[in-house]
Amino acid sequence: MLDAVLAFDVGGTDMKVGMILGDPSHGEVEVRDLQRHPTPLDGARSGESVCARIVELTAEYRAAHPELTIGAVGVTVPGIVDEDAGIGIYSSNLGWRDFPFTATLEQALGLPVGFGHDVSMAGEAEFHLGAAAGEKDVLILVIGTGIAGAILCDGKRIAGGGYAGEIGHAMVPGPDGSLVIMESLGSAGAIARRYGEVTGEAVPGAREVIALAAAGDVAAKTIWHDAIHALAFSIAQCVSILGTETVVLGGGLSMAGPALFEPLAARVDELLTFHRRPGYVHAALGENAGLIGSALKARSLSAGSLAPGKKQA
Amino acid sequence: MLDAVLAFDVGGTDMKVGMILGDPSHGEVEVRDLQRHPTPLDGARSGESVCARIVELTAEYRAAHPELTIGAVGVTVPGIVDEDAGIGIYSSNLGWRDFPFTATLEQALGLPVGFGHDVSMAGEAEFHLGAAAGEKDVLILVIGTGIAGAILCDGKRIAGGGYAGEIGHAMVPGPDGSLVIMESLGSAGAIARRYGEVTGEAVPGAREVIALAAAGDVAAKTIWHDAIHALAFSIAQCVSILGTETVVLGGGLSMAGPALFEPLAARVDELLTFHRRPGYVHAALGENAGLIGSALKARSLSAGSLAPGKKQA
Repeated sequence: MLDAVLAFDVGGTDMKVGMILGDPSHGEVEVRDLQRHPTPLDGARSGESVCARIVELTAEYRAAHPELTIGAVGVTVPGIVDEDAGIGIYSSNLGWRDFPFTATLEQALGLPVGFGHDVSMAGEAEFHLGAAAGEKDVLILVIGTGIAGAILCDGKRIAGGGYAGEIGHAMVPGPDGSLVIMESLGSAGAIARRYGEVTGEAVPGAREVIALAAAGDVAAKTIWHDAIHALAFSIAQCVSILGTETVVLGGGLSMAGPALFEPLAARVDELLTFHRRPGYVHAALGENAGLIGSALKARSLSAGSLAPGKKQA
Repeated sequence: MLDAVLAFDVGGTDMKVGMILGDPSHGEVEVRDLQRHPTPLDGARSGESVCARIVELTAEYRAAHPELTIGAVGVTVPGIVDEDAGIGIYSSNLGWRDFPFTATLEQALGLPVGFGHDVSMAGEAEFHLGAAAGEKDVLILVIGTGIAGAILCDGKRIAGGGYAGEIGHAMVPGPDGSLVIMESLGSAGAIARRYGEVTGEAVPGAREVIALAAAGDVAAKTIWHDAIHALAFSIAQCVSILGTETVVLGGGLSMAGPALFEPLAARVDELLTFHRRPGYVHAALGENAGLIGSALKARSLSAGSLAPGKKQA
């Protein structure tokens, strides 16, 4: 039987699950039987609910894949995370405080659990295997329901005691001059929500707002402009404070491609003076970066090594 | 004869010089014969002029102190600095571009030269010997003619290729809602200049504006409020992005003490949500931190060790 890591990427809406085969540390990764399930939201008890669901899904994957041995489990969560202690300190979207994910899951599963912040683990994967491989001063922004970052300075991912990278909650100047948190303007979730609020017409997501903006819709253009300005403001802060040279954009909004990258680079340029200008690259590992990063971490905790897999497309 | 480092801290207005005795790496430092001289400003040729003045002053110190041997020279400059290459890449206040300080001075002096960014070297000193000793996530702000920072993440000073710490040139929302660079509101130089512009009455420095604000002068209160808001905005960015736990304030403005620290902490608190709140401490090595930091670096380049000195008060 092949040895695999079952990896869970717990988001504010969905949790992704997949079997990770191959040796991530050598850049060869296969994600098998990728599934998506609703994240069980249960207020302050969401930690317990998420763990219960992970245990159920682990049993289902084990039954469905007799050809694989699950040697370890990887779990990533959003919010403030103490990786070393295995604790979800706080998540504004999911509601827990100081929930002991690693201890709870290792007891329930009898397997080593690699636990970390979703975007930090995605950053770890992009840094080692993906878009930022070989770079030293990098900001990775994952733009989805909310926005979080992973930051590499002088070639090392910084932790800040679990508090680094919460750039989505940094203040930016809002359209009316007041200060608001960055993700309230720049996230895919905010773009769709604001369009619904302004026009009274609900849209499925940011993709539709961007298309409407391109077609000349005034409300969509304004909301997209605000999003670009908010994202650019925070990127420029990182460049000014840290000397960031490479910006990796991931998450749903990054799929907008040039419609995002080009105005963003132009606006960042306006906010810098003598600083060097960053380059912009699309996250290379796509939506599976968090899963792969947590597998990297889980694998480092488990005795065996992953069976050979094929390089991810 | 005792072995010493002659250290130069080149600022936008003055250059400080002093003989550094003792072993900085063991926290025992004596600064002897501290002098202050005007920085020779010569536009794009300021690098040459500064080096010529350093050579003159080294001869003067050598003649005046026959009891000391100058074993190495430390030099710190503002702006963008490539420490490893020994180059002042750019200084907005002093005008040079890509000036080879280390090579020029080592050739002229025949001594090893420890060269670095003024605030990075001050940070290095505060980190090893001063206010931030033992801390892991630190922002050191030196607030004088301009503003620059040194940043410690997870216990390491970050370089960003020489571009890290230029927080004085990060954008902040100005009083009229437009974006301006932080030091145009928050520096001691800006506070004095703005008061003169608004009232038509020149003041010697920020100290007088702070005193006027405390006495109820409306223009002074407004300008001091703007300065606090600008400084707090940038500190809150660092806390949000990096998880900064300790803020060390140095430079002339830090002498304002509680008049600065208390409103600053209150304003930073308003700009944070779930983030942990930083503590605020006064730079412990005072105005000599840059000199001491450059001596630390120069000493590491020179074969001998400094003679025993006394612990700085």
